[in-house]
Amino acid sequence: MVFYSLDIIGTFAFAISGFLTAFHKRLDLFGLFIIAFVTALGGGTLRDVLIGRTPVGWMIDLNYVYVVFGGVVFAILFKRKLEYLRTSLFLFDTIGLAVFTILGIEKGIDANLHPVISIALGTMSASFGGVIRDILCNEIPIIFEKKEIYATACVFGGAVFFVLKMFTIPMIVIYIITISIIITIRLLAVKYKLKLPQIKD
Amino acid sequence: MVFYSLDIIGTFAFAISGFLTAFHKRLDLFGLFIIAFVTALGGGTLRDVLIGRTPVGWMIDLNYVYVVFGGVVFAILFKRKLEYLRTSLFLFDTIGLAVFTILGIEKGIDANLHPVISIALGTMSASFGGVIRDILCNEIPIIFEKKEIYATACVFGGAVFFVLKMFTIPMIVIYIITISIIITIRLLAVKYKLKLPQIKD
Amino acid sequence: MVFYSLDIIGTFAFAISGFLTAFHKRLDLFGLFIIAFVTALGGGTLRDVLIGRTPVGWMIDLNYVYVVFGGVVFAILFKRKLEYLRTSLFLFDTIGLAVFTILGIEKGIDANLHPVISIALGTMSASFGGVIRDILCNEIPIIFEKKEIYATACVFGGAVFFVLKMFTIPMIVIYIITISIIITIRLLAVKYKLKLPQIKD
Repeated sequence: MVFYSLDIIGTFAFAISGFLTAFHKRLDLFGLFIIAFVTALGGGTLRDVLIGRTPVGWMIDLNYVYVVFGGVVFAILFKRKLEYLRTSLFLFDTIGLAVFTILGIEKGIDANLHPVISIALGTMSASFGGVIRDILCNEIPIIFEKKEIYATACVFGGAVFFVLKMFTIPMIVIYIITISIIITIRLLAVKYKLKLPQIKD
Repeated sequence: MVFYSLDIIGTFAFAISGFLTAFHKRLDLFGLFIIAFVTALGGGTLRDVLIGRTPVGWMIDLNYVYVVFGGVVFAILFKRKLEYLRTSLFLFDTIGLAVFTILGIEKGIDANLHPVISIALGTMSASFGGVIRDILCNEIPIIFEKKEIYATACVFGGAVFFVLKMFTIPMIVIYIITISIIITIRLLAVKYKLKLPQIKD
Repeated sequence: MVFYSLDIIGTFAFAISGFLTAFHKRLDLFGLFIIAFVTALGGGTLRDVLIGRTPVGWMIDLNYVYVVFGGVVFAILFKRKLEYLRTSLFLFDTIGLAVFTILGIEKGIDANLHPVISIALGTMSASFGGVIRDILCNEIPIIFEKKEIYATACVFGGAVFFVLKMFTIPMIVIYIITISIIITIRLLAVKYKLKLPQIKD
């Protein structure tokens, strides 16, 4: 299924992003793996715990664990070339951001939660792996700071998702539109350095 | 109901306290909202997760989410005047501390947990939102350090709660006494700078 | 039962290790207790939450709470002598590491989880209390850094556990062998300063 493949691609990209952060912190092999793991699967784990979907996702479907492992091995083997792969990795990461959001929203709908909460769950799935990564690496989470729009793209995409659902549009079309919107916002944000306003003193 | 109103007032005050911490860390709008959110609702969320009360509270009753949102909007609009509101905010925060403690204890009793564990749950509900706030802002949690008595007031109030329950006193009276005790301890602690002892070398 | 006693000894040692970290950070009495608590019981708590075994362990069996409390009181009374007890404490800590791993693996098997996931649960039970301790104390978790092998001993012991289970060996023998292996690896790691490789630039 297309969705599952995109989910796997996103997990792979998130694992490599975690690896790189841990690598710059000079962590050992165990630390590298754990940080890659929580970056890729931490957001979904938090989501599952909050809605009581336990044992959490990766404990049931081991493919996620293997993908993170593969991501770490890949990153170690090609670490000198990751710089050249920067654009591909950024694209994969952006695909992950969009797909994780939709999957999180679906989990919220399955649990009969309100659209606002479902959007929060989607955004959390997509962006809180990075928050846990930054906490473990003793940094203020990057998505809370003055960087390009990230989690806000998920919130906006999620809102569009529920607006579209009010019309009789096939789900597959809604998925494609929502995912495209999140990806587009994120790409534009990075290209034009769009930031959220910071409240001034 | 009086309890619910006090709970809402406490949530509002905690959200503003989170906002202020995040604001001093110069986070962006998304960061401000998330920190306000976890400060106000993080303690109760942790409590719910530990006892398996999922989906957690704020996912079922959206009013909490709206109150946090309202708190952030209020804080942005009146941020120059928050200094003048300092005493009111401190009072609201103290009410929140007391009410969250009682609500957490009740959840523990509902789950058939031992009084000691219920007191721990109450204290956690009241004080761990601030712990998560400080971790996300990359600080050692303020309640672990040499500041005025805070969480200890909840522990003490909780103990009184269970002592009173052994007598045939109407619950409403027990609530009022316990809440008054927590508020009084906290007010006295701040006024007279009462601290817990620190173990010396 | 022998297992339960070893579990209690491990909890006691972990609580003292948490106390010492918090003490060096100059936290107050409440902070000391909380850090001792999460160091001793945080790994098992995380494990229980992830598999949905709630209310989590220490909420049901209060002995764990009392042991942590006892550990803190012991550490305060004998803090000048803890230096002399260093070897004993290190041994207790190592026993805890091994026993917590086995207990976590058993919980995974009880929940019908895959061996790989059960090993992860065991390792988490044994080592994530320390991770939460370090996060609360605003440090990069020590087990991710270039120190002697720690969590890797649990992973290796867990793997041996499942290999042995494929043969018709009595469980008690498997327990003894696995625990001995984890303890031996850890002792050798500290004696010979064995570290995991760090990925070079």
